[in-house]
Amino acid sequence: MGRTLVYPKRSSNTVRRYSQRATYDVRTIHSIINSSQVLHVSFSPGPSDPFPAILPMIGQMGSFEYPSADLGEPLDCYLHGYVSARIMNLARNAEGEGLPVCIAATKVDGLVLALTPFSHSYNYRSAILHGYAKLVTDEEEKLYAMKLITDSVVPGRWDNSRVPPDGGELASTAILKVKVVDGSGKIRDGGVSDERKDKQNEETTARVWTGVVPVWETFGEPIPSAENRVKDVPEYIASHVARSNDRNRTYAVDAVKVEPPKED
Amino acid sequence: MGRTLVYPKRSSNTVRRYSQRATYDVRTIHSIINSSQVLHVSFSPGPSDPFPAILPMIGQMGSFEYPSADLGEPLDCYLHGYVSARIMNLARNAEGEGLPVCIAATKVDGLVLALTPFSHSYNYRSAILHGYAKLVTDEEEKLYAMKLITDSVVPGRWDNSRVPPDGGELASTAILKVKVVDGSGKIRDGGVSDERKDKQNEETTARVWTGVVPVWETFGEPIPSAENRVKDVPEYIASHVARSNDRNRTYAVDAVKVEPPKED
Repeated sequence: MGRTLVYPKRSSNTVRRYSQRATYDVRTIHSIINSSQVLHVSFSPGPSDPFPAILPMIGQMGSFEYPSADLGEPLDCYLHGYVSARIMNLARNAEGEGLPVCIAATKVDGLVLALTPFSHSYNYRSAILHGYAKLVTDEEEKLYAMKLITDSVVPGRWDNSRVPPDGGELASTAILKVKVVDGSGKIRDGGVSDERKDKQNEETTARVWTGVVPVWETFGEPIPSAENRVKDVPEYIASHVARSNDRNRTYAVDAVKVEPPKED
Repeated sequence: MGRTLVYPKRSSNTVRRYSQRATYDVRTIHSIINSSQVLHVSFSPGPSDPFPAILPMIGQMGSFEYPSADLGEPLDCYLHGYVSARIMNLARNAEGEGLPVCIAATKVDGLVLALTPFSHSYNYRSAILHGYAKLVTDEEEKLYAMKLITDSVVPGRWDNSRVPPDGGELASTAILKVKVVDGSGKIRDGGVSDERKDKQNEETTARVWTGVVPVWETFGEPIPSAENRVKDVPEYIASHVARSNDRNRTYAVDAVKVEPPKED
């Protein structure tokens, strides 16, 4: 290890507002993407439609060429969808490098309640990737990506379900591989940051409660289906639920304790 | 009341995949937008950049002309941002109806774990709006939108903080008003829906646990700032935290009990 890769700053991904909160660190950006249950993927539907499109998709960073690459290495973003979805058809027919897409992931970690609405904020982590999407056509790579994405929902789920997919399942599943061109992230943590003029106003400070409401995603007790025949919730599911709840709660609460940046 | 408005089906917003899960109901779509803490807003940065852009933003549906309009009525989407953000400059300089944008909101309500990776799914609610964004220039309307958005974070927060914003605060806050052209929503609830060939395979059913892990957003105990001078967490904050946690958990757990659609 020892090296830290960063995404190049280009005009499309350079953060200008609150730039002290920006990160171009590859590992940080990939971590935000990989821990998000839903990615928002934007693309242009074509010249006849004035509006960009956004599709909520499931995806993961990975490397088929170097499967042992870790989150700090260059990775591709694999996105899962239905074979005849519009984005799949556009990617199938795209010329050159592929279909230009933007991928976004955002997590809200807390409501920052300040003396004034203007100083209100969220604690959050967000990441953006730009890249070119192509359909995965190699069956080995498709299976690699399907396992990667299934295991991102619950680690170990692929091997603990009925695999491999049969011919029909493979044929109706499409995987997009996005070659990433640039990326950026933005993280806000810490407590409330009010302006001096308000902090010195006793009428205001006596009346307005300030602080942070931590926010995190909770997994509930797994609910077996009516047709489930396995008596107990398997350990790999139960421990994922427990671990995720602990990690999510701890992050949101600890984020409040971080010293805020000077400019806020 | 008594009438149910729907968004027109156009080529840009018609849901083709799992169309039995689609909704064009105005009230449902507006509810998903308004209960989402972050909206993902997509726009085209211009001809020199091949990639669409996505910005995470805070926003709310509302009507300045008819402030008492409810969620089932035609509403505009107000988005909050910094005055010199790229999207604000693009909207300021946009010709005609405004800057074409796509607004997306997605909530994950559960991990649906089926016998095969192919039949895995999420319970979720998602909404998409297309429309034209313009900067709000009328000060009264700007204040209306700022209150609307602040109160969406914690109801009542506007009146319980230092308001109105001063001249500098108003000048550095920009509000986008999106005139909505079309919208659509998609909702998946219910339990696991496996295919017959897998349900009849005893080796598979004896080995693979199936069910749903409910997922919801939790608000933690409010953490006062070091400089907070109000002794107790005010009732309007405490009750919002309690109500939200109860509503979010109840939705995710109850969603599992809904009968799944025939085609899944």
